[in-house]
Amino acid sequence: MRGGCNWVGVVWRGRGKKTRYSSYTPPKYPTVLGPNLPDVWIPSTKSQRPQSSASFPNGQAAAVIDGKSIAQDIKVRIAGEIRRTKAAIGKCPGLAVVLVGERRDSRTYINIKLRACEEVGIATQIAKLPENCTETELLDVVSDFNEDPSVHGIIVQLPLPQHLDEEKIMTVVSPEKDVDGFHPLNMGNLAMRGREPLFIPCAPKGCLELLLRFGVEIIGKKSVVIGRSKIVGLPISFLLQRHHATVCTVHPYTKKPEEIISQADIVVSDVGIPNMVRGNWLKPGAVVIDMGTNLVKDPSSRSGFCVTGDVCYKEAIKVVSAITPVPGGVGPVTIAMLLSNTLDSSKRAFGFS
Amino acid sequence: MRGGCNWVGVVWRGRGKKTRYSSYTPPKYPTVLGPNLPDVWIPSTKSQRPQSSASFPNGQAAAVIDGKSIAQDIKVRIAGEIRRTKAAIGKCPGLAVVLVGERRDSRTYINIKLRACEEVGIATQIAKLPENCTETELLDVVSDFNEDPSVHGIIVQLPLPQHLDEEKIMTVVSPEKDVDGFHPLNMGNLAMRGREPLFIPCAPKGCLELLLRFGVEIIGKKSVVIGRSKIVGLPISFLLQRHHATVCTVHPYTKKPEEIISQADIVVSDVGIPNMVRGNWLKPGAVVIDMGTNLVKDPSSRSGFCVTGDVCYKEAIKVVSAITPVPGGVGPVTIAMLLSNTLDSSKRAFGFS
Repeated sequence: MRGGCNWVGVVWRGRGKKTRYSSYTPPKYPTVLGPNLPDVWIPSTKSQRPQSSASFPNGQAAAVIDGKSIAQDIKVRIAGEIRRTKAAIGKCPGLAVVLVGERRDSRTYINIKLRACEEVGIATQIAKLPENCTETELLDVVSDFNEDPSVHGIIVQLPLPQHLDEEKIMTVVSPEKDVDGFHPLNMGNLAMRGREPLFIPCAPKGCLELLLRFGVEIIGKKSVVIGRSKIVGLPISFLLQRHHATVCTVHPYTKKPEEIISQADIVVSDVGIPNMVRGNWLKPGAVVIDMGTNLVKDPSSRSGFCVTGDVCYKEAIKVVSAITPVPGGVGPVTIAMLLSNTLDSSKRAFGFS
Repeated sequence: MRGGCNWVGVVWRGRGKKTRYSSYTPPKYPTVLGPNLPDVWIPSTKSQRPQSSASFPNGQAAAVIDGKSIAQDIKVRIAGEIRRTKAAIGKCPGLAVVLVGERRDSRTYINIKLRACEEVGIATQIAKLPENCTETELLDVVSDFNEDPSVHGIIVQLPLPQHLDEEKIMTVVSPEKDVDGFHPLNMGNLAMRGREPLFIPCAPKGCLELLLRFGVEIIGKKSVVIGRSKIVGLPISFLLQRHHATVCTVHPYTKKPEEIISQADIVVSDVGIPNMVRGNWLKPGAVVIDMGTNLVKDPSSRSGFCVTGDVCYKEAIKVVSAITPVPGGVGPVTIAMLLSNTLDSSKRAFGFS
């Protein structure tokens, strides 16, 4: 994960001219959980605080953070680790997926995850339940996977049908196999500095992975997280906080969100509305991580749809220092983080490092 | 908790003239965990968002939020509930306190808690361990209290001596008896909207209790929490978030904290530095909850010390709408919340409501 990676598609701000980086090696960076710094208050505002500086590889350039190539880099490392484990102890990691109902988007996401597992050598099992299954049936399936020693990670694909209590089911997944990181025990340990969760949710972990690989200095930076979902916005705010950013969370009850967003050095968007964040909402030089994956009608595409982010990309690219594209930004890295969590879990179970 | 309470010591802004409120009845307010509103994003910034308005009882007045009388009000209610429980089922709540070492401040805090328990009819036990006790000895004491059916709440007084792993010990306290609310499972359930922790940490719960009893509208308000300690600042930010405030957390690595604080409608300070927050850091009309309890030298006092908050009170009172004094603000309400948590825990154990 600390190896070199290529930055593809760097765009010079305001010019639209693309430059390909093939030899950029990111600096050594801290872990996703952030450096454990003491909270020492310095009463005078004139006294020294840790200074941060823009640390993008390219000075004035607005770069496109290429999640695809970073994810590929991570997957290669994971595949290598799995081969090494298998050679040493003859075992491989296993992921179990629970799918309830026939939602097309859920099936698509699951297929992407299963394919990625196959690519790196993670064994998979899938339990499909009908839309009208009972809570007890679902809980039984989860409990069986909790007990199964060949399973190191369990995903219950969300959203569940309305008659099933999502919160309850997430709590039944063993915290030791909670590769999605949604169990409240893992979430509490993520929120509380000085503690370590067994798993960090995949999309937030991917977001931080991108910032860190890109060498973005987070400490002391004004950061705005737009959205506060339990699975994306909330844990991202925890991670940015653990990296000592000054974090403000913007949500639908925030007045004049654009005023707050325009002050931020780092903007992470988890909204679900295509192009909601406009270019003129962003501070010049900001870094933008777009977690949105929104399907919009696109008659020019074969499927009739295209995927777009929460941030108006063509406006933002003229303003910011760096931005993740959609697709090809956080998405692939999120999948890579799921593989990474499953690998870590299996190593803990095997007692192998 | 929804009964009338008296506002003592209201101060008119800029005049220093005190007015006594004896008949103020707070409006009905939502629970400490906040209203469960859906996150519906409205893309246009011009469209309607929930409006908030200043809703202090006194128009232009800067009020001193009298924690002492509010705490008294809460304690009377709790004592009544305990009498009712005893009369109905012959049982009363029990609190166990674990004290390691001889820290004078810890002993003082514990004595205050034990006295408050006695006042309302909560049975108490105290386990005193020497400064040099082993982790196993301490864990055994905690485990015994976990098993003891007469104990409904367990407090391990912090800070512990350095050789003991605070995080580990907090995790061993049963989440069902974690009246301090520091267990990561309770903290995770507090952080995640839609979930309910068994306990909310006492000081944060007291902070919200004050805001709600005072009728401060929180939804949509810009709120700054100064400090991010696991036991105060962090859970307060969760509670404000659950009440749909726009929350920004300021900490020692924040640059120009005064700029951020000066934009806030609600300021909660959890710093531990006397008078760090100056009057000119505050937005006119803001509401300030001062969680600081700092001992400063005071030759005019018999003990040679006095207790002061994080906020420069005499400056702030000229600027803000409402402020908690130190002492007599959040402190007494925090103790009342401990009693309330213990009562709730016992009712759950008794199956009595």
